[in-house]
Amino acid sequence: MLSQPARPGTCRTRLAYPAAMSFELEPVTPQGARFAEAAEALIPTLAARADQADREGRFPIENVDALREAGLLGALVPEELGGLGVTKIHDWAVGLSRLARGEGSMAIAINMHMGTSRALVQRWEAARRARDEAGEASSAGLLRAVAAGQLVICATATEPGTDFLRPHTTATIDSDTAVIDGHKIFVTLSPAAQLFAMNVRVPDPEGGPDRIAFAFVPASTEGLEPQDDWDALGMRASGSQSVRLRGCRIPAASLQIAGEWGRWSPGLLMGRTLANQTLLGAFLGIAEAAAELAREAARKQTKTKVDGPIARLSGVQHRVGEMEIALAGCRAALAAAGRSLDARLDRAQGAPLPLEEAHAAMADYQAAKWIVNQGAIEIVNQAMDVAGGGAYMSASPLGRLYRDVRAGPFMQPYSPTEAREYVGQVALGMPPDG
Amino acid sequence: MLSQPARPGTCRTRLAYPAAMSFELEPVTPQGARFAEAAEALIPTLAARADQADREGRFPIENVDALREAGLLGALVPEELGGLGVTKIHDWAVGLSRLARGEGSMAIAINMHMGTSRALVQRWEAARRARDEAGEASSAGLLRAVAAGQLVICATATEPGTDFLRPHTTATIDSDTAVIDGHKIFVTLSPAAQLFAMNVRVPDPEGGPDRIAFAFVPASTEGLEPQDDWDALGMRASGSQSVRLRGCRIPAASLQIAGEWGRWSPGLLMGRTLANQTLLGAFLGIAEAAAELAREAARKQTKTKVDGPIARLSGVQHRVGEMEIALAGCRAALAAAGRSLDARLDRAQGAPLPLEEAHAAMADYQAAKWIVNQGAIEIVNQAMDVAGGGAYMSASPLGRLYRDVRAGPFMQPYSPTEAREYVGQVALGMPPDG
Amino acid sequence: MLSQPARPGTCRTRLAYPAAMSFELEPVTPQGARFAEAAEALIPTLAARADQADREGRFPIENVDALREAGLLGALVPEELGGLGVTKIHDWAVGLSRLARGEGSMAIAINMHMGTSRALVQRWEAARRARDEAGEASSAGLLRAVAAGQLVICATATEPGTDFLRPHTTATIDSDTAVIDGHKIFVTLSPAAQLFAMNVRVPDPEGGPDRIAFAFVPASTEGLEPQDDWDALGMRASGSQSVRLRGCRIPAASLQIAGEWGRWSPGLLMGRTLANQTLLGAFLGIAEAAAELAREAARKQTKTKVDGPIARLSGVQHRVGEMEIALAGCRAALAAAGRSLDARLDRAQGAPLPLEEAHAAMADYQAAKWIVNQGAIEIVNQAMDVAGGGAYMSASPLGRLYRDVRAGPFMQPYSPTEAREYVGQVALGMPPDG
Amino acid sequence: MLSQPARPGTCRTRLAYPAAMSFELEPVTPQGARFAEAAEALIPTLAARADQADREGRFPIENVDALREAGLLGALVPEELGGLGVTKIHDWAVGLSRLARGEGSMAIAINMHMGTSRALVQRWEAARRARDEAGEASSAGLLRAVAAGQLVICATATEPGTDFLRPHTTATIDSDTAVIDGHKIFVTLSPAAQLFAMNVRVPDPEGGPDRIAFAFVPASTEGLEPQDDWDALGMRASGSQSVRLRGCRIPAASLQIAGEWGRWSPGLLMGRTLANQTLLGAFLGIAEAAAELAREAARKQTKTKVDGPIARLSGVQHRVGEMEIALAGCRAALAAAGRSLDARLDRAQGAPLPLEEAHAAMADYQAAKWIVNQGAIEIVNQAMDVAGGGAYMSASPLGRLYRDVRAGPFMQPYSPTEAREYVGQVALGMPPDG
Repeated sequence: MLSQPARPGTCRTRLAYPAAMSFELEPVTPQGARFAEAAEALIPTLAARADQADREGRFPIENVDALREAGLLGALVPEELGGLGVTKIHDWAVGLSRLARGEGSMAIAINMHMGTSRALVQRWEAARRARDEAGEASSAGLLRAVAAGQLVICATATEPGTDFLRPHTTATIDSDTAVIDGHKIFVTLSPAAQLFAMNVRVPDPEGGPDRIAFAFVPASTEGLEPQDDWDALGMRASGSQSVRLRGCRIPAASLQIAGEWGRWSPGLLMGRTLANQTLLGAFLGIAEAAAELAREAARKQTKTKVDGPIARLSGVQHRVGEMEIALAGCRAALAAAGRSLDARLDRAQGAPLPLEEAHAAMADYQAAKWIVNQGAIEIVNQAMDVAGGGAYMSASPLGRLYRDVRAGPFMQPYSPTEAREYVGQVALGMPPDG
Repeated sequence: MLSQPARPGTCRTRLAYPAAMSFELEPVTPQGARFAEAAEALIPTLAARADQADREGRFPIENVDALREAGLLGALVPEELGGLGVTKIHDWAVGLSRLARGEGSMAIAINMHMGTSRALVQRWEAARRARDEAGEASSAGLLRAVAAGQLVICATATEPGTDFLRPHTTATIDSDTAVIDGHKIFVTLSPAAQLFAMNVRVPDPEGGPDRIAFAFVPASTEGLEPQDDWDALGMRASGSQSVRLRGCRIPAASLQIAGEWGRWSPGLLMGRTLANQTLLGAFLGIAEAAAELAREAARKQTKTKVDGPIARLSGVQHRVGEMEIALAGCRAALAAAGRSLDARLDRAQGAPLPLEEAHAAMADYQAAKWIVNQGAIEIVNQAMDVAGGGAYMSASPLGRLYRDVRAGPFMQPYSPTEAREYVGQVALGMPPDG
Repeated sequence: MLSQPARPGTCRTRLAYPAAMSFELEPVTPQGARFAEAAEALIPTLAARADQADREGRFPIENVDALREAGLLGALVPEELGGLGVTKIHDWAVGLSRLARGEGSMAIAINMHMGTSRALVQRWEAARRARDEAGEASSAGLLRAVAAGQLVICATATEPGTDFLRPHTTATIDSDTAVIDGHKIFVTLSPAAQLFAMNVRVPDPEGGPDRIAFAFVPASTEGLEPQDDWDALGMRASGSQSVRLRGCRIPAASLQIAGEWGRWSPGLLMGRTLANQTLLGAFLGIAEAAAELAREAARKQTKTKVDGPIARLSGVQHRVGEMEIALAGCRAALAAAGRSLDARLDRAQGAPLPLEEAHAAMADYQAAKWIVNQGAIEIVNQAMDVAGGGAYMSASPLGRLYRDVRAGPFMQPYSPTEAREYVGQVALGMPPDG
Repeated sequence: MLSQPARPGTCRTRLAYPAAMSFELEPVTPQGARFAEAAEALIPTLAARADQADREGRFPIENVDALREAGLLGALVPEELGGLGVTKIHDWAVGLSRLARGEGSMAIAINMHMGTSRALVQRWEAARRARDEAGEASSAGLLRAVAAGQLVICATATEPGTDFLRPHTTATIDSDTAVIDGHKIFVTLSPAAQLFAMNVRVPDPEGGPDRIAFAFVPASTEGLEPQDDWDALGMRASGSQSVRLRGCRIPAASLQIAGEWGRWSPGLLMGRTLANQTLLGAFLGIAEAAAELAREAARKQTKTKVDGPIARLSGVQHRVGEMEIALAGCRAALAAAGRSLDARLDRAQGAPLPLEEAHAAMADYQAAKWIVNQGAIEIVNQAMDVAGGGAYMSASPLGRLYRDVRAGPFMQPYSPTEAREYVGQVALGMPPDG
């Protein structure tokens, strides 16, 4: 029979050899450790459902329940508000990588929720610093709901034919109401969300430049219409359908103006980096799962011409070595990006970073994104080489990993057609305006 | 809406710019040109059926009809026996690459049939040279049936857990009958085949070393049981199911002894090279289709921040340039391999090549295989980068190309875990025995 | 003692195994074969002088004598004018690669002479077609001198801080005299040249756009001052000094106007491709010499832990395999580029190509240039890995090859910062104006 | 004129943009910070002498004086013994990378001294733990001399045709004297050393397996004959001559038996990792210097066709971006390796690691070595692409960096022919015995 690599669910516990985990990411705070442990405990559950959800292209809502029970929906919520209190970007990425060893789709889905809940935490902290009790109470209420798993938030910053800085979804101000019309795509996690966060264009009533704002639209809002149209090559269980908005009315005061339409501001730049850098953890976790399947295949598969497992073949050892080196490189890059971003945030102590440093942080993220996205694709490829023809059969999870991991380069910002030029511009002191 | 790249079916005729076709493979004989033209004419038909067949994982038997009507089933049959008379390996690969621009599955499927029909041509020629009139007539009859499209032959050299030189499927000689038992996998094209060619182990009745032989088992043979179990990541329309053989009886005289079990002979080596080198054309054609989709996407897609198509972005131009260079490299390598193998065969004039040169030919093929297989995967990746997020949607054929192209490295011999070491051994004058 | 790899001079004759020469370039015409054979015969001579010339940074004028005696200075001169009559770009590159197996510096130096002598052949042919007997006689006289080795021509198209299309070296028309002032760099072969060919800017006396012209300045012209300043990382024996021109007077009628300053014309584009594509042969030859040194080292060096030569180590076999595959890719790309360009020229039958096709030809060349230049650097790197620490010692020729091979990417057009974008632009139907 | 990139000496202070320093390595202890700062202060001094020392192939003994004055010769000596007290491998590599921004040769030379002085610190600590006052005093005396700059120690583990585990240099025991005969190569720093540390073979007098021991031979020992034969492609100022030992007599008691000849023990493995991992800092520093030269060239060089510096060209931005990403990857890998090794040592608290973990540590190092060595070579290549033709002239330091950086892959263990296979073996739980 074709060799059928075992499910990746239990990769952690079955590890026979420490070196297989070169540069494995480890949390740097106790809160991060709790997040990582809880995430690891979910790997078997997520992995057990992954192949069927992938085949059916269905968002496994029961996984959200599992995350809720494990307290993971409130991972970034402060402990005093009922969450796990993770504060470090590094640890956030570590936890996400552990979830992705079980299933990539859920990892990228929950990252959207976490990114938005982190933004809420920042708002809560700002209100506290400003002694704005009403604002503090309002944010605290939302965060308690997040921690309790009663409020799941999805986020989208994507529309067809444009980029984050130039949304065509528009919020028209009608006295104290904002009326939103538009079309958002790749709205990951949306089947489970009670709240939709999104970037919108706000025309200036006095004819000045348009603005970008963040809008939070409850799922129950009239005119918010999920399209149930997610049918993709991979990440098929991520619920990334498109959503149409037709005259959705929300309080105008809830819009958060974030900068000028079409231009980078420090806040918009940092927001993009903070919302997306940890996604790299998902692609790392996929690569880690693939690598473990490959190691296992090498140790268990036999061939007539070998007196024992194919792991004895120098060619297999060599390919595994190439795979491990690539994996070490991905881990190192993601660790460096997390530490670097945390250090920047620590130094800033809540104050906004200057535009120049915001570009530097984005360039750091882009360097890590390139290394991890390209590396993870290559690792899955190498894992398939090691596992042999069985890896091409639908019965092997490696095919799903091959399809899921390809999502990485599509994540914005930046695409592979843009990233290297952007990094070069920043390094040369010539970052783009928008 | 998400950009939906057009179907690849018409990539030839829509080409706006010659440089997009750097080093495009062209036939070197009139027979090859007829093959290539007929294959190109089928591209729209194949492409139109490809996505549905892929979704359903169904072998589109109607495509075999289309090939039959186009005379392609007899591409390698001499003109005097009713075929197209293609004799050059180079031209065979060219025609296959054209078919693969329409659909990769059919390209790899028909290659199996062509490889076996070429072996029949060699037998027919040998009979003629030996003035063996009965043999000549017998082969001629089969070849006329092949040319007429009445005889479709599939071939398999794969079994789980072993390699081509060490089959466990066994032909036991029972006076003038050979009784075959075993299990073959990756039996591409088998749903359409009337005849199954395969390698088998023949125990030596006198206790000498076992032999490898080729057996031809009619589809109607009792005990030949196709398993209808082809469910893979890609090449889903290739009909590559497994087949069980339980006591299949064929005339013992029809077995073709080819060498010692477990050891390379010149004939076995050359047979492997001849049966597989042209498969690279299929993966080249897939890459060519992906590249054309990317060029088209770059010329047609617009973005808000660009005043026109995204082709104006330097980053897109750069990525397209990388893709074109990789494509030029793949084409050049396949052309060099074809020309080199044809030159070896021309020099040999039908005589067997010495073992050393058979290894040299295999090493040439392996070099081209590495370049084309790795390059084609990278080209599809780059094409997806250029086409953007829409390429990740199931509605885009690029996802199918991404899955189909990954089959290349699994093709034997050799796997990516073996190929580089083998090439090095040959270059150092130390080729393996088996 | 440290292993000292043997000199590359005799790599051809010592080849023990044919596969070491996968896709080796072979001439396609008898004239090309004579060129290649004569070049191969010179390998020992060139190799024997290479290391000392490199150390001294001296142009070995005695090598020009050797080429003269071998008839190689007239390689591209028609047989009826006393030359070898090579007409194919492919064969020109093949011969150059053979010379470069002996010494890269002489290969790039003689390419300059060959490129200019080919331009003279074109002029002679045009005069014959136009029944311009005076022009025919004049060109024939020069070509006879070239074939006899009495006229060595160097060429330069480089100036600091600008590109080929925008020379600052200016030819000012003073009635029937052109007065040339400027500064040319990388004037390879200049220590041996009797004639200096160069691109110059010709201001339009009526205020129209400036022109580019080719000027031929005899070495004896007053004001032509070689600077004897060639001191580089590699190609140290190529005599690529800079040359200052101060009021050099040549007949105005001898200027060949070639197009508008700063804009590509078909003629200027094809001229750049024709003058430079064959240079790739030099870098291929360097890589071939390095690969042969590596194979030899693997077969001859022993290590205590191996029972015999290090070629028995799977890691060495693997690295050699990677090197061979890269070498096969370089050879295939150069062969494809040569065949493609020859086919374009054959189809054109002396007529100028349209601009679009001239860009296509340049893009073909750029694809081959990328593959060969990057590949050759990598092959020398891999060869050093195989040969081990001894390859780092000055006593090994591998260090020279490592330095020489790095010259490739600097050759214009295009640099590695430009090439991929250019190829992409051409593939997208958007070639640059200039 | 050809652009002449400025000397790298002042790369730190001239940095205009922080993103150019993505993932820059920073010390993690105050001791490490002092080391790094002192090293940075020396960059201009080292850089100013580098090109001339390179040309002359001379070891610049005056640089040792500069390091002595800066207190760097005692970087790893405990503060209470007069040193800087650096304890972290990570910080050691950081400091070395800073020195290498000035000159690679001195960085690799001083690493030998530091590795041996670290071994002395371990001996001193062991003596203290064992309350061995004599041993403590003896080691303390040596360390005080090291800190004072009176004792420079070089180390060699290399002999032609064998590996570290199988030295042929032999220590024959003659009652209380060990008599050493052999030939050591690549004895970096030896022109400045008062003490030579080396691995030797010690035959077992009772016919048991031979042992490996470390011997410390004073430079003044009769029979120790430096050969003054260092003439290499790069690292020409590192004094890496060979040394012959003919009957050198040292006290037998000073030999440190370290394990069985030809077999890995935990101590031998860890010793190799500890002595070599920090060398990666030298190659990182070289790459950093090259990258800064490239950025500077891009900002300062102009081209006629650009209205300003070439940094405005999208192709230049793109190439710089590729270079920065490679640099970020190298830094991240070296940081991860340093942190990982420090964590292992911290956990062990002076106790020996089990063999399995010693292999894991070596595999970590090998992964970082592959990434940094291959990456640093590529970075220098990319820097030359950006800087253009001037980078090929001897007047540019980039040529030296190109030659120096190539030394990395030759450093043992492991060579590029061995490293990937070794990493794969460890990952598969099958590390080699020796």
